[in-house]
Amino acid sequence: MEYVLGAHQYGKAETRLVRIYRDTARHQIRDLNVSTSLRGDFAAAYLDGDQATVLPTDSQKNTAYAFALDKGVTDIETYALALARHFADDIEPVQAARVEVDEYEWERVRVGGGEHPHAFVRASQEVRTTTATVQRRAHEQRAWVLSGLRDLVLLKSTGSEFTGFLHDRYTTLPETDDRVLATSLTARWRHARPERDDWSAVNASIRQVLIETFATVHSRALQQSLFQMGNAVLAAHADIAEIRLSAPNKHHFLVDLSPFGLDNRGEVFHADDRPYGLIQCAVQRADAPPAGPAWDAPGSFAG
Amino acid sequence: MEYVLGAHQYGKAETRLVRIYRDTARHQIRDLNVSTSLRGDFAAAYLDGDQATVLPTDSQKNTAYAFALDKGVTDIETYALALARHFADDIEPVQAARVEVDEYEWERVRVGGGEHPHAFVRASQEVRTTTATVQRRAHEQRAWVLSGLRDLVLLKSTGSEFTGFLHDRYTTLPETDDRVLATSLTARWRHARPERDDWSAVNASIRQVLIETFATVHSRALQQSLFQMGNAVLAAHADIAEIRLSAPNKHHFLVDLSPFGLDNRGEVFHADDRPYGLIQCAVQRADAPPAGPAWDAPGSFAG
Amino acid sequence: MEYVLGAHQYGKAETRLVRIYRDTARHQIRDLNVSTSLRGDFAAAYLDGDQATVLPTDSQKNTAYAFALDKGVTDIETYALALARHFADDIEPVQAARVEVDEYEWERVRVGGGEHPHAFVRASQEVRTTTATVQRRAHEQRAWVLSGLRDLVLLKSTGSEFTGFLHDRYTTLPETDDRVLATSLTARWRHARPERDDWSAVNASIRQVLIETFATVHSRALQQSLFQMGNAVLAAHADIAEIRLSAPNKHHFLVDLSPFGLDNRGEVFHADDRPYGLIQCAVQRADAPPAGPAWDAPGSFAG
Amino acid sequence: MEYVLGAHQYGKAETRLVRIYRDTARHQIRDLNVSTSLRGDFAAAYLDGDQATVLPTDSQKNTAYAFALDKGVTDIETYALALARHFADDIEPVQAARVEVDEYEWERVRVGGGEHPHAFVRASQEVRTTTATVQRRAHEQRAWVLSGLRDLVLLKSTGSEFTGFLHDRYTTLPETDDRVLATSLTARWRHARPERDDWSAVNASIRQVLIETFATVHSRALQQSLFQMGNAVLAAHADIAEIRLSAPNKHHFLVDLSPFGLDNRGEVFHADDRPYGLIQCAVQRADAPPAGPAWDAPGSFAG
Repeated sequence: MEYVLGAHQYGKAETRLVRIYRDTARHQIRDLNVSTSLRGDFAAAYLDGDQATVLPTDSQKNTAYAFALDKGVTDIETYALALARHFADDIEPVQAARVEVDEYEWERVRVGGGEHPHAFVRASQEVRTTTATVQRRAHEQRAWVLSGLRDLVLLKSTGSEFTGFLHDRYTTLPETDDRVLATSLTARWRHARPERDDWSAVNASIRQVLIETFATVHSRALQQSLFQMGNAVLAAHADIAEIRLSAPNKHHFLVDLSPFGLDNRGEVFHADDRPYGLIQCAVQRADAPPAGPAWDAPGSFAG
Repeated sequence: MEYVLGAHQYGKAETRLVRIYRDTARHQIRDLNVSTSLRGDFAAAYLDGDQATVLPTDSQKNTAYAFALDKGVTDIETYALALARHFADDIEPVQAARVEVDEYEWERVRVGGGEHPHAFVRASQEVRTTTATVQRRAHEQRAWVLSGLRDLVLLKSTGSEFTGFLHDRYTTLPETDDRVLATSLTARWRHARPERDDWSAVNASIRQVLIETFATVHSRALQQSLFQMGNAVLAAHADIAEIRLSAPNKHHFLVDLSPFGLDNRGEVFHADDRPYGLIQCAVQRADAPPAGPAWDAPGSFAG
Repeated sequence: MEYVLGAHQYGKAETRLVRIYRDTARHQIRDLNVSTSLRGDFAAAYLDGDQATVLPTDSQKNTAYAFALDKGVTDIETYALALARHFADDIEPVQAARVEVDEYEWERVRVGGGEHPHAFVRASQEVRTTTATVQRRAHEQRAWVLSGLRDLVLLKSTGSEFTGFLHDRYTTLPETDDRVLATSLTARWRHARPERDDWSAVNASIRQVLIETFATVHSRALQQSLFQMGNAVLAAHADIAEIRLSAPNKHHFLVDLSPFGLDNRGEVFHADDRPYGLIQCAVQRADAPPAGPAWDAPGSFAG
Repeated sequence: MEYVLGAHQYGKAETRLVRIYRDTARHQIRDLNVSTSLRGDFAAAYLDGDQATVLPTDSQKNTAYAFALDKGVTDIETYALALARHFADDIEPVQAARVEVDEYEWERVRVGGGEHPHAFVRASQEVRTTTATVQRRAHEQRAWVLSGLRDLVLLKSTGSEFTGFLHDRYTTLPETDDRVLATSLTARWRHARPERDDWSAVNASIRQVLIETFATVHSRALQQSLFQMGNAVLAAHADIAEIRLSAPNKHHFLVDLSPFGLDNRGEVFHADDRPYGLIQCAVQRADAPPAGPAWDAPGSFAG
C-alpha cells in the first residue's frame, strides 16, 4: 500500500447527560454535553476492518454515564479528567484520550423570596466548557486542562472607536469615535497544572475579569479590548498559562433616518447578521509551560 | 377566472433593531426583532401585478426604525401598538395591521460591585414577545394585544409523576411516581383591553406566577401543571382574558447502570432530543371578551 | 372554578422514523419525521391530573413505528391517514386526530453508470409534508388531507421588476425593472377528497407546476408570482380544492462597486439574511368543499 | 509587560455573495459564502490600539465583492487564490492571507423538458468548500489550496457490520453483522500544487469516488470505509497529496416491535440525533509535500 494512514481519532460526541444530586431535599443539577475522543493503536480498524483494539463508542457513552454516578460531577474539569485518565489508564490501546464537556447553567426558581429546593430555570445561553487531554499512563502520564466559555454576548453602547486604520483602494469605511461594540465571546484558558480543586471558583473569577475588562477599557479596536482582557486574566491568575479569545464583531449599523427628518444620534441601530468581523488572539506568559496537544480539538480536524 | 384569491397578507419580517437611550450617562438598551404584516385592499397586486396600493415592505422596515427613534421603545407593547395603529390609520389600503415584536433581554455588567453605565451582557436565552393587531380606523378601530414569552426552560428534579394512564395494545411505558419534568415553555396571554401603561410590570408578574406554579404544583401530568399555571395567572390578573400554553415534554430518561453494578436512583439521566411530547392548552375567563383576530399569527399561515 | 379550559391537544412530536423495504436486493428507503396530536375527552388530565383517558405520547410513538412496519409507508399521505384513523377509531376518548409527516428525500447512489441497490445520498434540503386530520368514527367520520413542501429554494436572475408601488413618507426604495427574485417556498394544498392512490404522482406534478410557473411568469411582484403559481396548480389538478403559499422575499442587494471604478450591472449581489419580505396567500376554487379543521396546525397554537 | 501576544489573526467572516453571469440569455449563478483572514504585523492594534497597519474587515468585504465582478468566479479555488494573493501581495503588513469559500449549488429549472435560461432551484444541502492560504510575496510566495465538501449525507441499508470489537466492563453493545450505516461526510483534500485549471472537474471526480467507495465497500466499520474512501481518491488522483475525512456515525437503531407481535427484520429504525460516533482520519501519500499552514483553519482557533 503506497498510501499512509495519517492522524486519526474516534469517539462518542454529544452525550447529553444530566446529573442530579438528591442526597438532601435541596437538589443540585449538572447539565452536560460530553464528547470523548481516543487516539492510539487503532490502525488495523482503518486498514483491515479489524476491531480487536477498538473500544466501541457505545462503551465510551456508557462510561460517561457510569462515571457521572460513580465519581460524580462536582465540576466539569474534575469529571473530564477522571474520564480521560480512565481511558488512558485502563484501555490498553489508548495512547491519548480527550474529553470535552459543555455545561449548561441552571438557576434555582425563587418562590416567595426563597429558593425552591428542586425547581430550576435555565440561566443564560452562555456555555461553560472544558477540555481534558491525557497522554500515556503511569509515571509517563501527562495531562492538560483547558477551561472556557462560549456565547458570552457582550455589548458596549459607547466607549468604543475605530480610527486611524490603513486605507487601500477598497476602503470606504468612515472613521468613528463612538460606536456600538458587541461580540459573542469564546474564550479558553489553559491551566498551568492539571491538579487543582478550585476549578469553579477560578473560572468564575476569570469570567468576571473578562467582562469587567471589556466594560472598562476604552476600546480603540476589538483587538485592543481582547488583548487587555487576556492580560487582565493572566495578571489576576498566576496559575493560568495562556488564554485564547475569539470574538466576532457583531456589527450594529447606525440607521440613517434623515430622509424622515429625524436626527439619529447613536440611538437606533440595525443589528446585522452577516458578514461579521472575526478577531482572534492568544495571550500567554513568556514562561508558560508547553501546550502539548491541549488545543488539538477534534472539531477542527477536517474543518 | 374561476379561482379565488383567499386570505392574503404581506409584510417585513425580522427587522433587527436596537434602541439605545443615552440621555444620561446611564444608557438603556432595547434589543428587538420586529415583524409587520398588513391585510387589506391588495388583491390587484396578486391578480394583475398592480402595486398601486402596496406599501413596500422596505417602507415598513423604515417605519419600524423611525418609530423606534421618534416614539421610542418604552416597552414592546406600546411600540407595537403605535406601529400597528400607524399602518391602520395612515395607509389607506390597510384594513388590518399586525406587529409582532420579540425582545432579547440584557443585564448591566457589574463592575466592582456596582452597575456599569453602558456595558451589557445578554441575559437568558428566553425571549419576550408581543403581538399587536389593529383593525380599521377612527371610531371603528379595534385593537388587541398579546404578550408572552418563549424558550423559558424549566425543570423539576422531583415532584412529578405519571400514573393511571390509558393502556392500549401499543402501550409499554411503565408508570412512575417520581420523574424529571422539564419543558421549554411558550406562553402568550391576551390582555382584556389594549390600553395600559404597566405592560412590563404585568408581564414580569405573570412570568413569576408561571414559574412559581410550575415549581410548587405536585405534577400528576404536564397537562395538570399547565392548567394550574394558566389558572394562577388568571387568578392573579383580572385584566388578562386568556392564556395559551405550549409545552414540549423534554424527556429525561433514567440511564440503566445496573450492568455496571451501579444503582441509579434518579441521579443520572439522558436528556433526549427527539421525539418529545407536546402539550398545549388554553385557559380563559368564562366572560372573556372575544379574541377576534388576535391569535391569527402570520407564521402559521401555510405551516 | 371560574376559569375555563379552552382548546387543548397533546401528542408526540418529531418521531424520526426510517422505513426500509428490503424484500428484494434493491432496497427502498422512506425517511420520516412523524408528529401525532389528539383532541378529545382529556379535560380531566388538565383539571384534576386524572390520566384515565390519556393515551401516553409514548404509545403514540410506538404506534407510529408499528404502523410503519405493519401497514408500510408507500406514501406519507396513506401512512398518515391510516395512523390518524387508528387513533380516531380505536382510542375511545379521541374525537379528532392529526398526523403530520415530513419526508426527507434520498436518491440512489450511482456506481459505474447504474443505480446501487442499497446505497443512498440525501437529495435536496427540500422537505415533503402532509397533514391528515380525522374526526369522529364510523359513519360520522370525516377526513382531510393536506400535502405540501417546504424549503423549496427558487431564484430568478432576471424577469422580475417592482415598480408603481405606493409611496408614503417613509418610502425610500427606488423602483426597479430588473432584479433578482428569490424565495424559500412553503406550499400546502388541500385535496378535495381524502381518498386517492396517486398521492406521490400528484404531488410531484404540483411541485413541477409551481416551479415552472415561478420560472416563466414575468414577475411584477412576488405577490403576482404566487397567485399565478396557485392558479396554475388549480388549473392542472381538478381535485385540489385550495393551495396556500408562504414566500419570504430573500433580498439580493446589488453591491455598489462604483467607488472602485467598477460598473456592477446586475452581476454581484449581497444575499441578505434579515429582514426579509414575507408574502402569503391562498388560492381556492369558488366551489371548494369546506376546509374544516384541516389547517389548524398544532405548531401555531401558542405562536 | 510580562505577557506576550501569541498567535493572532483577523478578518471578515461570511460575506454572502452571489455572482451572476448574464453575458448571454443563458445566465449562470455562483452562490458563495466568503471568509477572509489575515496574519502579519498587527501587534500594535492589540498592544496599543494603533490601527495604522490594520486593513479594516470592511475593506476586505469590499474586496471580495469587487474581485467577484472584476476577476469573476469561474471556480471557488481560482477566486479564493486570487483574493488571498491580493492581500499577501498588495497589503504591506500582511504576511499570510487565508480565504475560505463555501459554495451552494443551484440547478437550472426544467420547463417543458428543457433548461430555463435564468430560473434556478437550490440543489442538495451539500456544500462545496475551499481554503486558499498564501504566505509572503514575490519569489518567496508560497500557496496551498484545499478543496472539499460538507454535509454529504450517505446511507447504506445493508453491507455494514460491527463485530469483534474490544470489550471492557462498560461494554454492552451487541455485535451485528447487518446494520444501517449513515453519515454526514466532511472531506477536505489538499492539492499537491496550487496551480491548476481543472478544479471543478477534479473535485467532481473526487466526490464521485468518495460516494462510490462508500457504496461498494463492504464495511466492517466506518473507520474502514473512510480509509478506503481516502485511498481510492489518492489512487485516482495523483495530484492530491492528502485527504482528511470526518464522519459522524449517525446511528439508526432497530426498533423492538416484538411487544406488538411484529418481527422487525431490519425494516423500521429510529434515526437518533445525539450522541453520535465521530470518526476522523487522514490518508496521505508517503511522499506528500509538506502541508505548511494549509490546515490551520480560523474556526478552530479557540474552539
